[in-house]
Amino acid sequence: MAKLRAHNISVSLDGYLAGPDQALDAPLGVGGQALHEWVFATRYGRRMIGQDGGTEGVDDAFLARGDQNIGATVMGRNMFGPVRGPWPDEEWTGWWGEEPPYHHPVFVLTHHARPPLAMKGGTVFHFVTDGLDAALDRAFEAAGGADVRVGGGAAALQQCLFAGKLDELHIALVPVLLGRGERLFEHLDGGPEGYECVEFVSSPSVAHLRFERTGRRAQAPSQ
Amino acid sequence: MAKLRAHNISVSLDGYLAGPDQALDAPLGVGGQALHEWVFATRYGRRMIGQDGGTEGVDDAFLARGDQNIGATVMGRNMFGPVRGPWPDEEWTGWWGEEPPYHHPVFVLTHHARPPLAMKGGTVFHFVTDGLDAALDRAFEAAGGADVRVGGGAAALQQCLFAGKLDELHIALVPVLLGRGERLFEHLDGGPEGYECVEFVSSPSVAHLRFERTGRRAQAPSQ
Repeated sequence: MAKLRAHNISVSLDGYLAGPDQALDAPLGVGGQALHEWVFATRYGRRMIGQDGGTEGVDDAFLARGDQNIGATVMGRNMFGPVRGPWPDEEWTGWWGEEPPYHHPVFVLTHHARPPLAMKGGTVFHFVTDGLDAALDRAFEAAGGADVRVGGGAAALQQCLFAGKLDELHIALVPVLLGRGERLFEHLDGGPEGYECVEFVSSPSVAHLRFERTGRRAQAPSQ
Repeated sequence: MAKLRAHNISVSLDGYLAGPDQALDAPLGVGGQALHEWVFATRYGRRMIGQDGGTEGVDDAFLARGDQNIGATVMGRNMFGPVRGPWPDEEWTGWWGEEPPYHHPVFVLTHHARPPLAMKGGTVFHFVTDGLDAALDRAFEAAGGADVRVGGGAAALQQCLFAGKLDELHIALVPVLLGRGERLFEHLDGGPEGYECVEFVSSPSVAHLRFERTGRRAQAPSQ
């Protein structure tokens, strides 16, 4: 059965996956770029931005695994861009330039409708206004039997964890303290429940922790 | 100059150093015992509770370092025991039995006065009712030039971090998700500021992150 997976979710020791005040020149918020330095030190990460070189090894392998057997991606709107509120126009096409590194359908959770956006290299952004379940249904259908990835950010991951829908979660713990920003493990009402660490390995830069869902939530979350 | 240090502070991936609902039979709160399993797998940890055997290696070495050149300990009241409010009597003498593993003066932060308590093996518990600064002054004096350790728990560590008084912080990140409990990096108003990771190494059980204070807080914390 196709799975819902999240990979390479970089989190600071104090729990943040982005700094505060996301902006055009700070996609990961103020200070948040420290969370992704390990990515661009690897061969796989450098290839994503059209550069040569980089390390092979644990970090590189985990990055690559995040793309394997993924047929569609779901992401929150802030991961797609810094625009808030209604789309002023259709100029913003994501952080990733003309050819985003997805090469498959990407479903963006938003409250504001917008026509689909086809990019070079096969990525098509679809804007979903009727909630997480609808986005997941469409993503699994589009993936055609392959797995679906939750790209981020914090709110989208929390929704998936809270609902017990995430089958696999790979965290890359970065040894920095950000102090403020978007926390991953927040608003979970005692969750995540039923997740077990099945892989734990470190490089000199990052600790990789892979969790799998081994049970259901003991009780329905109170809302 | 003598330093203020915290060592072997075990924290779950979701940021908790204790579970909720601390009680006589749950010193680390519900589920919190998972945070200390790595300790009692080591030779040093087993010796602390009078047992033989255990692993040597990274975890064992970090545990031992936590005791080196420490002349006094400061701790919060909940780390001393589960009693809340005024002391009903003087029966409670800590979690550690007749001979606690400190063997030096221990200053317990509390709102409720109590006479000093001398235990077997050199540990003397002093109950300090006039705040963190007073406890630190007394601890540094008692340590006689050696370093002072902050034992825990969350509130005591937060006070030290918030005030920028901790010189060294060693976290043992445990690959579990607790879901609820006492968070370490909370109530810091954007801090900890000025701490840098100077050592990052993992065993198969735990990731060790050692931070040193490299600067002062950029601005006085707003209260």
